[in-house]
Amino acid sequence: MIQLVKQIYQAYGFTDEQSQEVADTLVYTDLIGIASHGVQRLIMYDRNIQNGKVQVHSQPEIVKETDVSAVVDAKFGLGQLNGIYSMKLAIQKAKAHGIGIVTTRNSLHYGIAGYYANLAANEGLIGMSSTNSRPGMVPTHATRAFIGTNPIGFAMPAEPHNFIYDVATTTVPQGKIEVYRKLEKDLPAFWVAKDGNQPVNDITDDETLDQLRDPEAPVGLTPLGGVDEETGSHKGYGLGVIVEIFTGILSMGSISNDITTKDLHSGPSQSFVAIDPGIFGDKDQIIKRFSAYLQEIRDLPAIPGKTVYVHGDKEALAYEDRKQNGIIVDDKTMAEVVNIAKRLGVDYAELIK
Amino acid sequence: MIQLVKQIYQAYGFTDEQSQEVADTLVYTDLIGIASHGVQRLIMYDRNIQNGKVQVHSQPEIVKETDVSAVVDAKFGLGQLNGIYSMKLAIQKAKAHGIGIVTTRNSLHYGIAGYYANLAANEGLIGMSSTNSRPGMVPTHATRAFIGTNPIGFAMPAEPHNFIYDVATTTVPQGKIEVYRKLEKDLPAFWVAKDGNQPVNDITDDETLDQLRDPEAPVGLTPLGGVDEETGSHKGYGLGVIVEIFTGILSMGSISNDITTKDLHSGPSQSFVAIDPGIFGDKDQIIKRFSAYLQEIRDLPAIPGKTVYVHGDKEALAYEDRKQNGIIVDDKTMAEVVNIAKRLGVDYAELIK
Repeated sequence: MIQLVKQIYQAYGFTDEQSQEVADTLVYTDLIGIASHGVQRLIMYDRNIQNGKVQVHSQPEIVKETDVSAVVDAKFGLGQLNGIYSMKLAIQKAKAHGIGIVTTRNSLHYGIAGYYANLAANEGLIGMSSTNSRPGMVPTHATRAFIGTNPIGFAMPAEPHNFIYDVATTTVPQGKIEVYRKLEKDLPAFWVAKDGNQPVNDITDDETLDQLRDPEAPVGLTPLGGVDEETGSHKGYGLGVIVEIFTGILSMGSISNDITTKDLHSGPSQSFVAIDPGIFGDKDQIIKRFSAYLQEIRDLPAIPGKTVYVHGDKEALAYEDRKQNGIIVDDKTMAEVVNIAKRLGVDYAELIK
Repeated sequence: MIQLVKQIYQAYGFTDEQSQEVADTLVYTDLIGIASHGVQRLIMYDRNIQNGKVQVHSQPEIVKETDVSAVVDAKFGLGQLNGIYSMKLAIQKAKAHGIGIVTTRNSLHYGIAGYYANLAANEGLIGMSSTNSRPGMVPTHATRAFIGTNPIGFAMPAEPHNFIYDVATTTVPQGKIEVYRKLEKDLPAFWVAKDGNQPVNDITDDETLDQLRDPEAPVGLTPLGGVDEETGSHKGYGLGVIVEIFTGILSMGSISNDITTKDLHSGPSQSFVAIDPGIFGDKDQIIKRFSAYLQEIRDLPAIPGKTVYVHGDKEALAYEDRKQNGIIVDDKTMAEVVNIAKRLGVDYAELIK
């Protein structure tokens, strides 16, 4: 699959290195079990390359820089390539000066935030990344979506594997609703709000659920914490705003509400942070103590039949499983990928045997 | 009240400047409407000074430092004084090098995290602060508390007033349960979990609620997002862990689970971050655009009868009100404060007329 994706991207006109990077990020996402953001996204990216939204030959440009920070104009290059470029820049700054914060404007959908955070963790650093996105979240007491699902990715080196936190600041991301619609399963909790505080659970209510794509409609995703202050709605909503600060506001790029799928000249803003734990003390000791701390959590008494996971455990388990047994790509996705390959003249037959 | 608190702290042996700082932080907290963390806390602090937990004459010491970071050993000095010292250090670093991150160990209860974040915002910077605290939060699928309520304070300059986000990473902080117990009101949502996933709402169930003070007992506060992954439990739990990283782990100080109220030699670890928005672009333009963004949120269509607030709005409203009409201190607290003043020989009569 890595070879197939790589050859498709080479056929679009990306360099060998760029094509390899895209293939690695997408297949990695499938390997850790997040199929919604893996190879399946090839179809959306293909559409954006076809309609000219993705600028295949553009190069990200640093427009402002200090020892510990940079603002990058991504010029609508592929989100994954901007993300890797910007996180590498943050890592470089953290290695030289202890901390690096990079904020990137005019980017495109970059996959999972945790991927970029984990690039830093793989270099022995604390990593963070966030992106804004088209309006999804309804702020507490409002009736329409204004803030994106604005995920927070955070990673820190640990044994036996990195701590990786990767969550939307809404109760669930947009893609989760799509998955439930495909499966025709009712929504099990207060994920979608109508008129600000009415739960939508009926998965056959297409009229309402289709309005999730229209920010002017009185339907949106609930913030983490639901729609009432009693359950902490304002906490999730505020996290969404904080992500907006580090992405759209500090980069002077698009805020979530500026981003539409139709407009070819609006794209998400993203942030990338790397911090060297070594500026605070002995790095090995810190990571050793952190690993022991995480193990203490895993060893806590649990609800019968349940496991206390630490963030990154499930991904590590999925990775082991998929490395052994292969990734799972549904038939529809596979057919579409083959169609793209065909159209581009990629010799896919050998690769999908 | 500022004078009264100041004179009490002078009587304990703190300097004039230190006493003024403590008085300012406590009364400010009452002014913005958070009585639970205001003058009421004088009683707890008095106990900790009486029993020797607070080291009245200790000075915080920088044990490791770079241009952009420091580790401070607070040596069990008053939490407020450590907080102000450490945030000033972070501010100084941000002004000189763009960013400052300070992590502080062996501190004590420092009041509200947002106060310290806002010190940076008042200097035109982005500010963040967090503290760990004795075990309160039950990690997802566990049955006992292991992580503190680990609040996140975040502030950024804006017009007409700063954006101030200040939230526990549990659904509600410990103090909120105490307030409901005093009022004998049942808990209105899933704030307290027994055996990991059983909601506790009956406020007369003293046996269960008293166990909130015992980390070994199968009772604890729910993470932001509740106790099920479907409602985002793992998201709040992970935020608690991230706060732990920036406080106890990076400072090599106590983690939440090490902190007990009885042990005189354990105290919370805290973090203080300041970032100069000017390293990313024209500071005035960034703040102007951010202010306009917040106003757009306030102007969103709202649920009938409700207001869409931005974080910091309620505090600003309370501040205006209290500045006009005075702060509200309940009789019991006032009597205890008077007792402390009497014991210390503070001439309080003139001050409470």
